Order: sequence, then C-alpha cells, then structure tokens
Amino acid sequence: MTTKTTQKIGPISGFPEYLPAQQRAFDAIVARIRAAYEQFGYTALETSVVERTDTLLAKGIDAKEVYGLRRLAAGEGEDGAKELALRFDLTVPTARYVAQNYGQLVFPFRRHQIQPVWRGERPQAGRYRQFHQCDIDYIADGAGALPLAADAEILACAYTALKGLGLKFTMRVNNRKLLNGLFAQAGIATPEARYAALKIIDDLEKQPREVSLEKLAALTPKAVNLLDVLTGKAEVVEDGYTEEGWKELQAVLNHTYENFGFPPKGIEADYTIARGLDYYTGTVVETVLHDAPELGSICSGGRYENLAENLSERALPGVGISIGLSRLATWLMTQEPWKSYAATSAHVYVPYGHRAVTRALRHELKNNQHLNIEEGLEDKPLGKQLQIAEKRGIMFAVLDVQGQHYKVRSFKTREDMFLDLDAIAEMFCAAEQRED
Amino acid sequence: MTTKTTQKIGPISGFPEYLPAQQRAFDAIVARIRAAYEQFGYTALETSVVERTDTLLAKGIDAKEVYGLRRLAAGEGEDGAKELALRFDLTVPTARYVAQNYGQLVFPFRRHQIQPVWRGERPQAGRYRQFHQCDIDYIADGAGALPLAADAEILACAYTALKGLGLKFTMRVNNRKLLNGLFAQAGIATPEARYAALKIIDDLEKQPREVSLEKLAALTPKAVNLLDVLTGKAEVVEDGYTEEGWKELQAVLNHTYENFGFPPKGIEADYTIARGLDYYTGTVVETVLHDAPELGSICSGGRYENLAENLSERALPGVGISIGLSRLATWLMTQEPWKSYAATSAHVYVPYGHRAVTRALRHELKNNQHLNIEEGLEDKPLGKQLQIAEKRGIMFAVLDVQGQHYKVRSFKTREDMFLDLDAIAEMFCAAEQRED
Repeated sequence: MTTKTTQKIGPISGFPEYLPAQQRAFDAIVARIRAAYEQFGYTALETSVVERTDTLLAKGIDAKEVYGLRRLAAGEGEDGAKELALRFDLTVPTARYVAQNYGQLVFPFRRHQIQPVWRGERPQAGRYRQFHQCDIDYIADGAGALPLAADAEILACAYTALKGLGLKFTMRVNNRKLLNGLFAQAGIATPEARYAALKIIDDLEKQPREVSLEKLAALTPKAVNLLDVLTGKAEVVEDGYTEEGWKELQAVLNHTYENFGFPPKGIEADYTIARGLDYYTGTVVETVLHDAPELGSICSGGRYENLAENLSERALPGVGISIGLSRLATWLMTQEPWKSYAATSAHVYVPYGHRAVTRALRHELKNNQHLNIEEGLEDKPLGKQLQIAEKRGIMFAVLDVQGQHYKVRSFKTREDMFLDLDAIAEMFCAAEQRED
Repeated sequence: MTTKTTQKIGPISGFPEYLPAQQRAFDAIVARIRAAYEQFGYTALETSVVERTDTLLAKGIDAKEVYGLRRLAAGEGEDGAKELALRFDLTVPTARYVAQNYGQLVFPFRRHQIQPVWRGERPQAGRYRQFHQCDIDYIADGAGALPLAADAEILACAYTALKGLGLKFTMRVNNRKLLNGLFAQAGIATPEARYAALKIIDDLEKQPREVSLEKLAALTPKAVNLLDVLTGKAEVVEDGYTEEGWKELQAVLNHTYENFGFPPKGIEADYTIARGLDYYTGTVVETVLHDAPELGSICSGGRYENLAENLSERALPGVGISIGLSRLATWLMTQEPWKSYAATSAHVYVPYGHRAVTRALRHELKNNQHLNIEEGLEDKPLGKQLQIAEKRGIMFAVLDVQGQHYKVRSFKTREDMFLDLDAIAEMFCAAEQRED
C-alpha cells in the first residue's frame, strides 16, 4: 500500500522549529514575558497573519522582504490573495487594528502582542525569516497628550519581563528630540543632514571611532565635540535646541525610578541610541545583554506621535517596546534552566497494566492540582518502559496505590517513596516553579 | 506632517480577529484545552507556518485551497519562496516533522499542536480561510503494533478537554474495517464501490433517507438492510467480513470505559460515521454539540496506518483527533462565561497620583500571587478615571494604603473595603477561576 517516493523533508532555511524539550522551554519563556506584561495591565491581542499589501508597503518597507500570498491553482486576482501578504512586524498590524476597531476600544489602550512575523531576508546565522516578537504598546486616543509616565511604564514593564527571565542587561534610553537638539547645536540642521547623522550614530558601535568621526566631520566642523557629548566624554549643554528633549529624557527616567521606588540598576541614559531610521519622535530605547552583547539589542522601542498615519485621520500617539524573542530564546536555550527542560509535559509515568493507579490519581485530583500523567499502553518489560520514560525526561513513576498512598519511584535516586496525592502534587508544583 | 491618504482598513474576509475581551476568552479556551491535553502527557509542538509546496500537495489536496508564498519584489525562484506555502492542516506538518526529526524523538510520541491553518476557500458564513485547530496524536515508531488503548486514550483526552469547556456533546465512534465489512456483507466489494458507499454514508445526515437509499440501491440489492444496520435499526451480523472491525470497535470502547472507570455519558458507537474520504484505516470519530448541532463535527479524528507515507520509508502508525476551534470558539463566545470576559487583563485600577499604592502592592506580592494592576497615568478627575476603568471591565479600584491594609472599592456594590494583600490576591484568584 505504501508508495516509497520519499520527498525532501530537511529544515526550511530561516523557518526555525523546536524539538519538544525546546518547545516547552520556549513556551515557558513566553509565559513569563506575558505574565510580566499583564502585571502592568497590558492585555493580549493577536492579529491575522496577513495584511493587505498596500497597508504593509505604506511604511516604505522593502518589498523584497515581504512575502505575498497567491493561491497555487487560481488565476491571479480570482480571490484577492494577491492583495494579501504576511506581516513583517507587529506595529503596522496594531496600527491597522486600532484604526479599524477605534470605536470599540477603550483608551488609553494597553495591549501586548506575542506572535511570529516574516521577512524574506537572505538567511544567515542568527537571522530568521520567521521570528517571534513580544510587543507592548500604550496608545492614547489622540484627544489628550500622551503622558511621559507612559514611556516610563513601558520601560518598567519590559525591565520586569527581562528580569523575570533571569537576565543581566542594560536598557539604554535616549530621546530623539535631544539627539536632534545636539545635532542642531553642532549646526546639523537640514532633514537630510540629520538623517545622515542619525545613521552614523546608529552605526557607532559597529565602527572604529575614527571612521565615525570622519563621516560626522563631513556634516559639521564640531564633529569631535558632538561625538564627545554623545559618548558621555563631555557634558550636554542645555540650550533652546536641547531643552525639550533633555527635559523629556530626565522626566522619563525619573518616572521610571518612581515606578520602582529606586533607580533600577540597568536602566540608564545613553545619548548614542538613535534606534535606526524608525518612526520614533521622542523616547528611544535599546537593550543589550551583558552575557551576550553579540545578539545586539534584544528589546527596543520608543515613542511615536502618530501610529496610524496612513490608516486613520486620527492621530494616535503611543509608546511601545518589543522583545525580539527568537534570537533571545535561541541564546536562553543554551543556559540553565532552559536548556534542561524535559521533552514531555508529563510529571509522572504509570506503567502498562497499572490503570487502577492512573484512575485513582485522576479521581483524587482537586481543582487546583495539576498532575500530568503518561500512561504506558504497550505491554513491554517494566525496566524497558521506565527507561523510555526517563529518556523523555520524566523524573518519577507511580507503581502502586494502597488506600491514600502511592508508591512513587524517583528515577534519580532509584528510591521508592510512599506519598499521598497532596504530597505528590506539591512536589511537582515545586519542580515546576524551579523549571518555569 | 501627517499625510491624510487613508487606506482601506476593513476586515479581510475569512481572516477573523478578536476584540480584547474576545481574545481573552479565546486564550482561556485554548488554555483549558491545552491543560486537558497535557494531563494525558501530550506535549506542545509548533511547526513553521510554511511547508514545501510538494509536501502539501502530495496528499491529493486541491491546489486551489493552498496559499503559496512569493516575495513581492523578487524574481520568481530567487529565494525559493515559490516552493513554500501555508499549511492547510496540522497533520501533514506533523508527519513531516516526525519524519524529519525521527532520530531525536522518543516513541511513542504524544504531541499536541494548537495553531492556525489556512485554506483558500471562498468565504461564507461560519467558514474561515484562517482557522485554529487543536490536535493531539499518539504516534508509534512502527516497529511494534499501535495498541487499541491509544485510540481510547485519544477519545478520553478529547472528552476531558470538551467537558472542561462545559460542553454537552456526543462523540460518535466507528471503525472503518467494520464499515468495510458491512459493505462486503452487502456485496459492495470493489474499491470504487466502497468509495462511493463511504461518500453516501458520510452524507447520510444531510439528505432524506429515500435519497441515500436510492443511491445505495445502485450499489447493492441489500441497500435497505445495510441502511438499517448502519442506523441501528437492525443488529450487526458478525461474520468473517465484520469480525476484525467489530472487535476493534468493542475494544476501543471498553478501553475508554476503563480509562474513566465507567462508561462515560456521551461516547457511543455509531455505524454511520465514515469520516469523509480521509486516510483513516480503523477507528473514526466525530463529535456533535447538543446545543449547536449546526456546527457539524467539532472534534474529529481516527487511526491511520501510515502517517508519513510520502515522507519517510518508515511506517508511522498513529491515532489522532482534532478540535476545530474557530467555529467552536465563535459559538462559545455567545455563551457564559466566555461572552462576559473583561477587555483587559488588569484585576485592579489604581488612579493617577496614587503611585505609593501601586508600589506597595507590587512590593508586597509573593511569588505565587498574581495581581495585574492598571495604573492611571493621566491627570483626570477621579470619577472619570473610574468610569474608564469600569468600561474596560475592571471590577475594583485600590484607592489607598495604610500599613498592611488597602482601601478597595467595588465598582459593582460601590462599597469600600479594607483588605490586606492576601485577601485581595485570594479574591482575584477566586474571580479568575470563575472566569477561566
């Protein structure tokens, strides 16, 4: 019956998938980030994987990076699939969603969105074509001003999420208005010159100081001083150019400190943060890991005056931040505890022929107790069964029930214990908190 | 600065999205299904949204229904995107995943997969082009036999998941070998005739009895008796044709009863279940809701002898079942408690200017306490702030802290209570269990 035409089934470059243990670690990482986001009142949102092509391309994105859809066997345009494409970030879909559902949302609108996005990049090491982003945004309705406390809340929330993953990191905070003010002080005043200067600053860390200095010198005779101020070697001179940005940056940092009740270690001003050529207009932030700076910024964002400018006649000011999860998760999974996850959700193994044990466990479980049981369904020697269970990462087998007590064997110590269900449930609750 | 070229932003037909309250209900539904799946040791798996086109089309699927990818601004074939397409189910990706990672998986492999799939159907009411499936499969390594207890475990697990959603339903179980045996008794013996008979049986409920009878009569002179046996009006006669299927069906039902310790109300034999023209070879099952039979089968599956026949030279026998979540969730969200979810994850609102309250709450929270706090960041009149919080679905505000006690206002009763954090955390734990 079987036709033996074996097809190519190797991995598709740039589209990562996890083995079961990694998937469990990934899910636990997401759960922690999500819990931190929700602690601050950011609520879950998911959008469709597709957007209209013209929505996606409006932001001046490179069309080469966008995956369009087409039905494999339909005439072009028959079902409109050619007008659809996979989202390349979560910001554009959120802007479209907020504009579309404006009347049914309550503002300020705090949402998190944790979903994959797709970019048709030529894949290289550490670059994905499918990757997960974990975004939060605080979006005002545009009728009032967006408070600077919102920028601080975003920082505090992302800080809490990253701390929750046990990471050591620095969040480097800057303000676009301050940066533009410093450029103006140096005589960089036209939009073109500002754009060129932004790009040089953004690349500062990737190049020797002399190269950046040479490039800046083409824009301003005060290149040395500008670079010294940006890198903290000279003080910022407050004047009419820098005043607004300087005040905003100070206010955001002060609000952040107030959130915690103390200046949190790892959130600091850094005048060299430009945040690429994105649409930010005030606060900008990037985050580097102390133990893996080579990942680049794993958590970036900022404030924008108008989220949905092509999509709505309303100005929707907001501030948001995004954890780039795929690269971060790949690194986390080389670290404890994430690299030692079991390949199954099962807490205990009950061997073949011990159905009375499974049934007793299931019947006795209370509402707030979670006990995931893998039951052996194949009649194999007990030793062989336990070997397979252990290989899967299960730590305990339940071999008998007598009254209220279960005979529990630890695969690690090879010892048998007699425990009641409360003790078993507590044991796994403790193990899960360690793992998760 | 704002360009007012407002684009089309209406919903994209067939690609559903939820408002925040619905999204929270949807997530809670998924969490319940997932918890039930994991109770039986089925572990999380996710696959990439794309598969190679030839992998997807190998199963004889209609190419019109498959969304292929193309880079919007790249020559065809430049990056291989034209060889990629969105998955249309979770079974083919799982088959490919298992074949691809065979050496790194431990068998039997129990996995759940809860993800969206895409089909380029012409959208109609209740039909989606993007919809979620919640699959479990038990996959053996093919070296030994797949026990019938696995079929029963799949039934028990799906039953537990659906019960966990508070649903009233009937799971109708049949066996393809029994069906073929009954056809053979009636003289329907060629593959073509069997195929035609399967199709008639599959459509039985959609047509008047006379129409089905007339169609069957074209295949066999024993049409009346066949239909009577299938619909339970006549007994199944055990003979050489029906023996194997009959025994399998009885064994699967007995194993299911053993799982629960009693015959569960709502799992029963039904000889008219054919499960379309899918690749099933033994057990087949469909599930109808008592309160919404118009949804059709919301949970279907069965046993297959060889999951990955075009992808691997190994036979991978398995048994699986899938909850079709999108249609089910749409219906559930018209019911309590799902239709009354709040539009935010926040448990309490703390007004503008009360940062000391927020800080005290956050600092006092213990590891196992979850309290999601929305903090007012805009300086508006208190009444207006509370109104907005209530509109979002928040039930309580915290207005003051004095020592260990917090002043908590209920939006429902308009009363103030003085509670310590343990009492507050417990209140929301209870509220969440009611909601979730």
